[in-house]
Amino acid sequence: MNFADYFPVWDKLTSGQRDTLSSYAAARRLKKGENLYHGLEQCTGLILVRSGQLRAYTVSEDGREITLYRLFDRDICLFSASCMMKSIQFHIIIDAEKDTEVVIIPSEVYKGVMETSAALANYTGEIMASRFSDVMWLMDQVLWKRFDSRLAGFLLEEARMEGTDTLKITHEAIGNHMGNPREVVTRMLRYFQNEGMVKLSRGTIALTDKKKLRELADE
Amino acid sequence: MNFADYFPVWDKLTSGQRDTLSSYAAARRLKKGENLYHGLEQCTGLILVRSGQLRAYTVSEDGREITLYRLFDRDICLFSASCMMKSIQFHIIIDAEKDTEVVIIPSEVYKGVMETSAALANYTGEIMASRFSDVMWLMDQVLWKRFDSRLAGFLLEEARMEGTDTLKITHEAIGNHMGNPREVVTRMLRYFQNEGMVKLSRGTIALTDKKKLRELADE
Repeated sequence: MNFADYFPVWDKLTSGQRDTLSSYAAARRLKKGENLYHGLEQCTGLILVRSGQLRAYTVSEDGREITLYRLFDRDICLFSASCMMKSIQFHIIIDAEKDTEVVIIPSEVYKGVMETSAALANYTGEIMASRFSDVMWLMDQVLWKRFDSRLAGFLLEEARMEGTDTLKITHEAIGNHMGNPREVVTRMLRYFQNEGMVKLSRGTIALTDKKKLRELADE
Repeated sequence: MNFADYFPVWDKLTSGQRDTLSSYAAARRLKKGENLYHGLEQCTGLILVRSGQLRAYTVSEDGREITLYRLFDRDICLFSASCMMKSIQFHIIIDAEKDTEVVIIPSEVYKGVMETSAALANYTGEIMASRFSDVMWLMDQVLWKRFDSRLAGFLLEEARMEGTDTLKITHEAIGNHMGNPREVVTRMLRYFQNEGMVKLSRGTIALTDKKKLRELADE
């Protein structure tokens, strides 16, 4: 485990600070679908992703979901350690989207080092700013972009992430990423199929005209 | 100007750091409606609000607006100094909503002190987390809440902020706060009027049944 891969400021920490962070860091394996963090009342700690994929999302009172961002190899999840900052007043949930290996640094340990290292505190600010930018991008999409355009963008992004043009994903799962009911997703996918952009079959969506999808997504 | 009112960590700074921040801080007066910051290409600096009211908002490509948050006495605006953090990758605009007095600390000066003070870096993180929470609240509203409920909440909040139940605000201005076209606002306000919750006249909206508005807003 090379901490410098996760913290570009690693060499600005004292050897004592480095020892503290690394000695308390604990490895954990998550199965696909497993929940890692479920909101403010929990304080899992800072999560470093070694391999796999995590999904951070919020849920409405009546159970609708929307994906806020995803985390991949070498990403750091800060909000799973939200208890270390009293100003974080919102709930997110984090699940493993694939089998995932993480290393967790307990919140109190990380907070302790951050209080004595301006370099680590500033780097933590950069991580937060980066997630903030993700969420602002998403809000722009939700507020101003039409659903057909967002859905086209989502399908293309999934294809890039999975490395295939035949996606194995349910309409309900897409709805949970995008904050829309399943029926709305199904109706739009059928429209896409009529336009020749996708081919639907049980459990899969094949992207058959990516050029047209890209135009629709405004990419 | 008492900086400790803005920075609870003021006494954790060295006298040199305190001198740097206060000697570069410059006072500025803004007229109601004046623009203070208009996005990433600009780097105004850290803004400390002494009196008045600022509004932070985003704009869609076709000119629609939505208010992200407001800043009052003793609030600090961080994103007007966004150039000091490379991970901030979104545009916001900040206008004075009332005649406002601010003090501005140049971004480079603030960044310099933050790089040597863990206390200031951590406090800056708390400010960002607080704005992040505001934006997450707003996203929840936009995603899951019905417009009638959001509008009722907005009217009640305005009445609290202005200290009056007779609001002087145009339907277009409300639309710009809430991310909706003027016509949608007008239609809903007429419905509220029919239900006896408000009374509309040229340029004003009187809240006539706050109990009912509170129920609708789910307060």
